[in-house]
Amino acid sequence: MPELRRDPFIGRWVIISTERSKRPNSYTSVHREQQGSAPCPFCPGNEDKTPGELLAYGQPKREANKPGWWLRVVPNKYPVLAIEGDLHRTGEDLFDKMDGLGAHEVVVETDDHSKSLEDLDVDRIRDVMNAWKERILDLRRDPRFEYILVFKNSGAAAGASIQHTHSQLIATPMVPIRVKQKMHGAEEYYEQRGRSIFADFIRAEKEKKVRIVEENDDFVSIAPFASRFPFETWVLPKNLASHYESMEPRHLHSLAGIMKSTLGRMNKVLDFPSYNFLIHNAPLKSASLSYFTWHIEIMPKLVQTAGFEWGTGFYINPVAPEDAARHMREVG
Amino acid sequence: MPELRRDPFIGRWVIISTERSKRPNSYTSVHREQQGSAPCPFCPGNEDKTPGELLAYGQPKREANKPGWWLRVVPNKYPVLAIEGDLHRTGEDLFDKMDGLGAHEVVVETDDHSKSLEDLDVDRIRDVMNAWKERILDLRRDPRFEYILVFKNSGAAAGASIQHTHSQLIATPMVPIRVKQKMHGAEEYYEQRGRSIFADFIRAEKEKKVRIVEENDDFVSIAPFASRFPFETWVLPKNLASHYESMEPRHLHSLAGIMKSTLGRMNKVLDFPSYNFLIHNAPLKSASLSYFTWHIEIMPKLVQTAGFEWGTGFYINPVAPEDAARHMREVG
Repeated sequence: MPELRRDPFIGRWVIISTERSKRPNSYTSVHREQQGSAPCPFCPGNEDKTPGELLAYGQPKREANKPGWWLRVVPNKYPVLAIEGDLHRTGEDLFDKMDGLGAHEVVVETDDHSKSLEDLDVDRIRDVMNAWKERILDLRRDPRFEYILVFKNSGAAAGASIQHTHSQLIATPMVPIRVKQKMHGAEEYYEQRGRSIFADFIRAEKEKKVRIVEENDDFVSIAPFASRFPFETWVLPKNLASHYESMEPRHLHSLAGIMKSTLGRMNKVLDFPSYNFLIHNAPLKSASLSYFTWHIEIMPKLVQTAGFEWGTGFYINPVAPEDAARHMREVG
Repeated sequence: MPELRRDPFIGRWVIISTERSKRPNSYTSVHREQQGSAPCPFCPGNEDKTPGELLAYGQPKREANKPGWWLRVVPNKYPVLAIEGDLHRTGEDLFDKMDGLGAHEVVVETDDHSKSLEDLDVDRIRDVMNAWKERILDLRRDPRFEYILVFKNSGAAAGASIQHTHSQLIATPMVPIRVKQKMHGAEEYYEQRGRSIFADFIRAEKEKKVRIVEENDDFVSIAPFASRFPFETWVLPKNLASHYESMEPRHLHSLAGIMKSTLGRMNKVLDFPSYNFLIHNAPLKSASLSYFTWHIEIMPKLVQTAGFEWGTGFYINPVAPEDAARHMREVG
């Protein structure tokens, strides 16, 4: 069973997930389990190399865990958190811990091993985004979970262990500190001014124009003012809503369109970088919130986080977001 | 002039340091400027390839910026913060910024290009630690600075741009958020219990023994309970003090000894990994504090920080600190 441990100085929780590597020299394997010449566990015909599927989109009357799908969701074979058990909070002296309870799922985004997410047709990308929504709606019925993070690691430098394009969901038994901080900032802003910081943020950026990458009817893509990383880009809905899973089908299509386009621009400017993206969503158990808006943060992996960043929490970004946005606008 | 920008959602400051890379494709060069076949700017005879020295230890009657030194401190040629100017706080809408004022210095730890810090004799390592102390004592006279971070990036994977062994100091015009959080946690603990969390932490770990890597008369080296990274190790003084720069000369020698030994163990277990270390020190303008103790955090670079970590602030550590400490104890 993985273990959640609380740092007694800062209160930050860490997941000690030793099942993924028992020997001292195998830690590097965590992110690299499946690379090399082994057959791809995410390709059609290899369905038995993953746990049984939770959801699949494919041909009518297809048999579960057999080929004929174009999207498939399975439990992660090496989960960082385990689905069975209770939290089991314990502590001694300064040392608080609990069982590493949660869920960890993989969305295999296509049956085509050679494609990346942004290579897919908009309709197929919409399917991926719909699968995230369906899985959140299912997982949120489990009262043990407080939060679900949807994220994607693309490319080995961004921590992807398997080349075949996929995204992941991790459900956690507590709201993560980074989300809490952002919610708190947005709530304070709303209390002081009676306005959503996300509405003000989108309005201010649209007036200034210099950090806008692109927009369509329903979404806008922005290189944020205080970007931590070069070419960091956020995608925000114009129809402000706190929960991703409340999105209407027509908006899913629109989101798929801007994600395909923005990731495509990034690939043109940066020559197909490794990247991470993640959805900052409201906590599962909160009602619909007027002060918070779900959004996607995209971070190409171009620089190493080093001693200064770890020690201070400051980030050093060598590319002004205005320059990043201009370069991304200029490639058509 | 670099720029400090405040994230309007979280309040986190980011350093936009565009002078280090003007063109869209040069961001990767930030951490790689000097590698390859160019002559090493930190080797004796190349003193003109760095800004003029601020401090040097070497042969008596040696001329400044000429060979004959075994340790040399110079301003960083590509500083992330600039030493000249005022803070110049400005803002518009949600967007607060100030000039990127600060200092950025490099400690060239030896004249021998082939050596790493932990290869040096204990006396020479003590010189490095004494240079950190001397530079902090000098920089703290500048009232514009609130904090100085001493850190080391060793190896390309840990963000080192130059192979020749060196550490760095960055003085900042504000106390970094990560330091504030740790100070705050320690202060709360002290107010509630009337005891130092650092004293309790060292005592509890010495009783349990399982996470102790080693100790000498004055320092102890521990794989902390809630380690974020595999083989993360902290070195703490037994003589609790809040400010590194107040350390007595005999303790410097003792610190050099344990750092050489602990880094040596890490090299044996992990086959010479890239690593970062940093000193968490009390803010420059605070008096001597009974609730806070300066310490060094060492983090070998073994895993990629990926989407889940960026999105949540949770870290996933695949090696239990008890196992890491045992492996490090076992290599003599």
